[in-house]
Amino acid sequence: MADAIGIALLGAGTVGAGVARAIETGAERYSSRVGRPLALRGVLVRDAGRPREGVPSDHLTSEVGSILADEGTHVVVELMGGEEPARQHIESALRSGRHVVTANKEVMAKHGPELLALAAERGVRLLYEAAVGGGIPIISPLSRDLLANEITDVTAIINGTTNFMLTAMAKRGAEYGDVLAEAQRLGYAEADPAADVDGGDAAYKLAILCGLAFHVVVSPEAVSRQGIRGLAARDFAYAQDLGYAIKLLAQGSLLPGPTGAELVATVSPTLIARHEPLATVDGVRNAVQVEGDLVGRVLFEGAGAGARPTASAVLADVLDVARDVATGRLPPEAAPYARAQVRPRERVVARHYLRLTVADRAGVLAGIAGILGRHEISLASVIQVEADSRARTAEIVITTHPAVTGRLDGALTEIAALEGDVPEVGSVLPIYGDGGAR
Amino acid sequence: MADAIGIALLGAGTVGAGVARAIETGAERYSSRVGRPLALRGVLVRDAGRPREGVPSDHLTSEVGSILADEGTHVVVELMGGEEPARQHIESALRSGRHVVTANKEVMAKHGPELLALAAERGVRLLYEAAVGGGIPIISPLSRDLLANEITDVTAIINGTTNFMLTAMAKRGAEYGDVLAEAQRLGYAEADPAADVDGGDAAYKLAILCGLAFHVVVSPEAVSRQGIRGLAARDFAYAQDLGYAIKLLAQGSLLPGPTGAELVATVSPTLIARHEPLATVDGVRNAVQVEGDLVGRVLFEGAGAGARPTASAVLADVLDVARDVATGRLPPEAAPYARAQVRPRERVVARHYLRLTVADRAGVLAGIAGILGRHEISLASVIQVEADSRARTAEIVITTHPAVTGRLDGALTEIAALEGDVPEVGSVLPIYGDGGAR
Repeated sequence: MADAIGIALLGAGTVGAGVARAIETGAERYSSRVGRPLALRGVLVRDAGRPREGVPSDHLTSEVGSILADEGTHVVVELMGGEEPARQHIESALRSGRHVVTANKEVMAKHGPELLALAAERGVRLLYEAAVGGGIPIISPLSRDLLANEITDVTAIINGTTNFMLTAMAKRGAEYGDVLAEAQRLGYAEADPAADVDGGDAAYKLAILCGLAFHVVVSPEAVSRQGIRGLAARDFAYAQDLGYAIKLLAQGSLLPGPTGAELVATVSPTLIARHEPLATVDGVRNAVQVEGDLVGRVLFEGAGAGARPTASAVLADVLDVARDVATGRLPPEAAPYARAQVRPRERVVARHYLRLTVADRAGVLAGIAGILGRHEISLASVIQVEADSRARTAEIVITTHPAVTGRLDGALTEIAALEGDVPEVGSVLPIYGDGGAR
Repeated sequence: MADAIGIALLGAGTVGAGVARAIETGAERYSSRVGRPLALRGVLVRDAGRPREGVPSDHLTSEVGSILADEGTHVVVELMGGEEPARQHIESALRSGRHVVTANKEVMAKHGPELLALAAERGVRLLYEAAVGGGIPIISPLSRDLLANEITDVTAIINGTTNFMLTAMAKRGAEYGDVLAEAQRLGYAEADPAADVDGGDAAYKLAILCGLAFHVVVSPEAVSRQGIRGLAARDFAYAQDLGYAIKLLAQGSLLPGPTGAELVATVSPTLIARHEPLATVDGVRNAVQVEGDLVGRVLFEGAGAGARPTASAVLADVLDVARDVATGRLPPEAAPYARAQVRPRERVVARHYLRLTVADRAGVLAGIAGILGRHEISLASVIQVEADSRARTAEIVITTHPAVTGRLDGALTEIAALEGDVPEVGSVLPIYGDGGAR
């Protein structure tokens, strides 16, 4: 095994154990695909005394130093998750001349550009296919296969937990609290679901996708974010009646602005016309739709999470790097990116869906329509439903034509100030897919 | 421009002109993505005297020798189509040490393995992303991103012409002849539509996909083929009633056989359950679904043809090779493949849909059911419709449970011999997507 390509893992959770097991059981197959055998050299864990299924116990260590000191390790695979110490370990591995493969969306979203620059400087590779969309090939197609295109738009369902929850709300008329409890019972949602339901996880992934698609540096803070906590079962019923599904869409576009191209990046529950391919992506599945000037729209769909799909993506990166090591290929140069100029939210143009609880008396709708009109927001449809005869309130559901978000904000502030007439401004959701130019 | 990477095109049809134009207009962008500028050096055409839009006239030549004699040409892009002389030109280019990019499905299906071996021997690359699925990234994801998987199944809609026709038959109840005429009018079908409607084009592409997915050499003759000429509008109506769409599916599987893994590769109009993602791929769009042991099912969907999507794939390959040239990377070694062992058609297990015209008299259905039963084919559903009261014939539509195709053939031979009772065995189509184990 003198000529084996050495692999070290940082982290031995379910993905790590799956990768370790695959390297053992797939040894012959991978060796024929790479040209040289792969050998697992070390596995960083918190407690090296606790045995891990599928990992020989003499490979376990709690010292990252001993992993980096091993001259036989060519590739370091980071599967710890979280920002620190994962980022630090990736940096150390790159500095020590190791290729790095990571599944870490948070580190890549926040520190990707400087880590990629460091890798290029050290003549090694930093790959991160598993950071977005689990096993679905998307990072590599954006980096390579769509490189000839000017990408104009990336629209994705990239959080399986929330897609499971929204699918359940749509199909069974269930309320948010019930589907969250169910997702937690099934292990799809964490005890603290904030990262999923508030859109943070999707925002990390969207920042990574936008960076690759538009060749700019995108920080996760550039992604404007709305979570799914405020959605009610009846939003799905109204959306259905209007011909839409509701999905937590992550959308990025590069649009012409007054001083150059501007990035619009949003994560939000969004109404999407039912004939759109993304509207039929249900359950924990993920999908990424990319629009380019040459290729038109292409869609990538599959399992967005899970130990085995994630291991598929991690191993693809490992095999790719290993082939480079085996053939002595040099890594490609990283092209330096400029920081994206972000379009302020109030200048973004979109269609919207509004659900308002209003007092059930004459003139209220006229008042609301008047406010919207004064703010230059024209209505595409209006539904009024008697919601609660005892409280004498009704519900008004409005869809707008494309309008500047800042004007909508102004109108909604005025509408909310109507108080007695409008006890609650319920959901305010963007609409994607027909005339929703941004 | 001393350090430009020289590109030569063989063929200047719509794709070639698009590629030439993109190299000119995208010069700055591509140069920043590659690290060195690209320069168009020569374009092989039949008549060098006829001007071509987007191609400088001094680049035109009708002599392939002058292209290969140009020391400044690093990459030869073959866009002529057809088997010869395209194959010969690709071989000559590889022998002369040039990297080759081709969109030629016929050459890659018939001669891919030996050309790839030649490229490896000469230390150059041969890329062919555009040969399957137009602009949809599929060759590169199979070669790289899914490499850690054992792929068990590839199921695809990879002929846009027939998918346009079948979609029109399904949505409008139109007959075959009418939709063919429409497809020809719109430029989707050739004057001689045989390559599309008889499944030959899809068979070439499936042979390429199976080779990559299963790491075996697959000749196009290994693909069993049924075209769409025999379909009637009422097949779509029956399928709809039964919960299916009809698509020209290209399917490949690697299955355990008595003497090792066996390939099953078929192109056939196929009933596919409506809830399957592939059932909703309509019009000229293509989609490829790949199933792997780690990743589960992933789907790639987009425009499967057209000058711009094809140019997107060709240019992706050109940029990938150009980055190698720019960074001095060596091509990866080609893994030698074994020739696939093909499962004989009669041993393939599938569910089937049968449409029979029968005499409208007592006992006919019992006779047919008896023959099927004796051949161990059990029925999943039976519909009998009075088709023509003057001719006193009825139509029987049967779906079977999974059965060995050889037994079905035997049963159908006996049924066809009933003559007076069964004037016509109409459509016999496989069913995909629920219990259709093969």
